[in-house]
Amino acid sequence: MDYAAVNLAQKFGLFDEQWQPRVIAQMNDYQFKVVKLQGDFIWHDHQHTDETFIVIDGVLRIDFRDGAVRLGAGEMFVVPKGVEHKPYAEREVKLLLIEPRGVFNTGHEGGERTAENDRWI
Amino acid sequence: MDYAAVNLAQKFGLFDEQWQPRVIAQMNDYQFKVVKLQGDFIWHDHQHTDETFIVIDGVLRIDFRDGAVRLGAGEMFVVPKGVEHKPYAEREVKLLLIEPRGVFNTGHEGGERTAENDRWI
Repeated sequence: MDYAAVNLAQKFGLFDEQWQPRVIAQMNDYQFKVVKLQGDFIWHDHQHTDETFIVIDGVLRIDFRDGAVRLGAGEMFVVPKGVEHKPYAEREVKLLLIEPRGVFNTGHEGGERTAENDRWI
Repeated sequence: MDYAAVNLAQKFGLFDEQWQPRVIAQMNDYQFKVVKLQGDFIWHDHQHTDETFIVIDGVLRIDFRDGAVRLGAGEMFVVPKGVEHKPYAEREVKLLLIEPRGVFNTGHEGGERTAENDRWI
């Protein structure tokens, strides 16, 4: 058994690509993913699960059809299942995402913005 | 629907008691809990679930029967289900715990160190 801590800053230092979540830990069937975002994403939702965003560095805005939430470092938000949302970051933001294994970043929308899933770092 | 961010520092500012986890968010049937620890806890395990520790401030040591892991701010560790562990902090440490709703802090050990469960803040 591995008793090494998972260091978020160290994990963020291992890659530069934006919008490409990397799995860093798993708890039961849920995964912890680090991701760097900048700019606009597509509208999507996750039909079968909530999705948790924790901002580690920077500022994230999550747009909803009827509003938005703005998250700074040390802030989190749980997007309920089935709720359409669109992440946006003016400057690069570093996030920790938590959601069940197998959830795609674009929900069921697919398309060119869909990242490889279950990619560990 | 509430689009307010959950701010960890603000939540930690709402209470002083140690070893008393407070729920701050829920994702499906999993809860995010903030807790302040200092000193030694009891040996326990969780038979049915992994448990995630993320250190927000301070240093946490988690002892296992055959070793230990030391976590500083920005570090995390997932304790696998069924693995006996004992958290320890020389000075107060602020943690984010993630585990399914209904999990007690002492596992199935019970006793005077068992905190009230499902307590929101």
